[in-house]
Amino acid sequence: MKTLRVDLGNRSYPIFIGADLITQPELLKPFIHGKQVVIVTNDTIAPLYLRQTEQLFSDVDCQSVILPDGEQYKTIAGMMPIIDRMMAENIDRRVTLVALGGGVIGDMTGFAAAIYRRGVNFIQIPTTLLAQVDSSVGGKTGVNHPLGKNMIGAFYQPQCVLADINTLNTLQDNQLAAGLAEVIKYALIDDPDFMAWLEQNMPKLLARDAQALMYAIEKSCQDKARIVSLDEKEAGQRALLNLGHTFGHAIEAASGYGNILHGEAVAIGMVMAADLSLRHGWLHEKEVVRIHKLISAANLPTHLPDNISTQQMWDFMAGDKKVLDGTLRLVLFKRQAHCAITSDYQPPLLQQTLESFANA
Amino acid sequence: MKTLRVDLGNRSYPIFIGADLITQPELLKPFIHGKQVVIVTNDTIAPLYLRQTEQLFSDVDCQSVILPDGEQYKTIAGMMPIIDRMMAENIDRRVTLVALGGGVIGDMTGFAAAIYRRGVNFIQIPTTLLAQVDSSVGGKTGVNHPLGKNMIGAFYQPQCVLADINTLNTLQDNQLAAGLAEVIKYALIDDPDFMAWLEQNMPKLLARDAQALMYAIEKSCQDKARIVSLDEKEAGQRALLNLGHTFGHAIEAASGYGNILHGEAVAIGMVMAADLSLRHGWLHEKEVVRIHKLISAANLPTHLPDNISTQQMWDFMAGDKKVLDGTLRLVLFKRQAHCAITSDYQPPLLQQTLESFANA
Repeated sequence: MKTLRVDLGNRSYPIFIGADLITQPELLKPFIHGKQVVIVTNDTIAPLYLRQTEQLFSDVDCQSVILPDGEQYKTIAGMMPIIDRMMAENIDRRVTLVALGGGVIGDMTGFAAAIYRRGVNFIQIPTTLLAQVDSSVGGKTGVNHPLGKNMIGAFYQPQCVLADINTLNTLQDNQLAAGLAEVIKYALIDDPDFMAWLEQNMPKLLARDAQALMYAIEKSCQDKARIVSLDEKEAGQRALLNLGHTFGHAIEAASGYGNILHGEAVAIGMVMAADLSLRHGWLHEKEVVRIHKLISAANLPTHLPDNISTQQMWDFMAGDKKVLDGTLRLVLFKRQAHCAITSDYQPPLLQQTLESFANA
Repeated sequence: MKTLRVDLGNRSYPIFIGADLITQPELLKPFIHGKQVVIVTNDTIAPLYLRQTEQLFSDVDCQSVILPDGEQYKTIAGMMPIIDRMMAENIDRRVTLVALGGGVIGDMTGFAAAIYRRGVNFIQIPTTLLAQVDSSVGGKTGVNHPLGKNMIGAFYQPQCVLADINTLNTLQDNQLAAGLAEVIKYALIDDPDFMAWLEQNMPKLLARDAQALMYAIEKSCQDKARIVSLDEKEAGQRALLNLGHTFGHAIEAASGYGNILHGEAVAIGMVMAADLSLRHGWLHEKEVVRIHKLISAANLPTHLPDNISTQQMWDFMAGDKKVLDGTLRLVLFKRQAHCAITSDYQPPLLQQTLESFANA
């Protein structure tokens, strides 16, 4: 088992990465303060891992809330059953909420923990690669609004994160690939060595080789923890983690939530960011090809879905959180494996990128 | 004008108290960072003070959201129009929300600010005495759940609080009295000098004498700021501010939100806390009489509404946030003007108190 640490003063916490972690109750004991635990999961994960997870908390009052599976339920209304159950059961302020599932469950459970009785403890047990390398680390919690993704939420840190790589064995192939999109993201932001490693080891990752997965998760969490420690609330550098996400969120919104996986949309978004960077002369053509190849090698899409128009992309991108005082900022490549947050791009070139990717 | 400071490290902020403050734009300028301001108010306050307040922000893009007036709208659904409007208008992360109104508007606007795009700035302009001396200071934000008051929310501090005593001139008499309940609370918690001052000056306060109001607001905010600075998230001492509130919240819930003013319920709750303390021998009968007289002198109720039963009081009190691991803690008098948070009372005596106040 590897233990990493997210340094955030009195909100610091460990990330445990390894195999068979959800069978070890002593690991989580120090993080449970009251006598009540509420596990939140979904109807896909519950049959696979809920019983095992409940056994981690056999010495406290442990209840479970099972939500329907899917990004389309990541809304205020979709989160309310967590709150309603706790209210109905008279759960007190010392409860620990446990998020058992992917990014959607983690985001909703973390947000419920942030706002229930003005904040209670929570623990992340991410069961997808995407959640293990990205959404469970860093304290971004929240739900979607009909007009934009993650627009309602809070920065709220967990007590700890427990990433058990065994849970990845039951992951569908497209979910594994979606997680790899975020892994590739860390390499592209500023880690050329990791990029080279990924180019060599992508077949192992797709074959779910335990050693390769451990390394990729550790490396990704390290990169993320470093950036989050420097800028918890995204006043600056943390926005680098949004590489591909401004395009990606627009793709998700235009597709209708739930019709494309977040990681797939981010993969397309990273290719679009590379394309726009190329048009400014910031990136060589051969680097763009390399990025394209790596993303394809991970079985991820590199083109927009058929039904998305240039106009839709503009509209949804303009609603992105990275807009400040009316200026849309994007994470773009300034050279190989060196990204920057910038509003210093030419809108006509952005228009060209959108047109060359959109089919309508 | 008086300026107080709430000391909370990098979340510290000033409270401005005085007359004619909402006509002085330069006071708020340092607290507006972006180019967008959204004022949230209700349909009672809007005709009185919205135009004036909008003029404070004439050099930025200023919009207003007008909500219906009343505690019964302090819900997730009641708050959503604030979020929906900001989403529809594409309002960015640098927006400043301005809460113009009483405690309900302040709590809802603060909560909307806490969760919109994971947190934006906000300013409190409380227009009721209750909001000026209590709810606008200290960063408690939130909404009610059908099963309990303020159960969904966040600790989220404003950029500043602007308490203009002129706005109290349009306050209804029962609203003024409700605010005085919280003023009396500070005296009862641990300030015997302030208690003596209140006994002497209650007629002036009821007559809305500007000097007396200034003094009472300043003293109350000082007391509250001191306690909040020591314990922002209510791990301990801050719970003293809940004197009368566990009883009070149960009274509000049993009456149905909106049928009794929060301050009125707290007034009854403080009398009940005094009664329970008397039954334990912690308080002299003459002190109980003094408390009773002061609360009556402020035109506040000292008896439960007719339709509330002992059983209802028990049920709603058991759901209070002050319950930890199944133990109901109460703020009780341990001697004159010296309160403590305690679970060290005798339940049969609590039963006696509830029975002697309830009529059903």
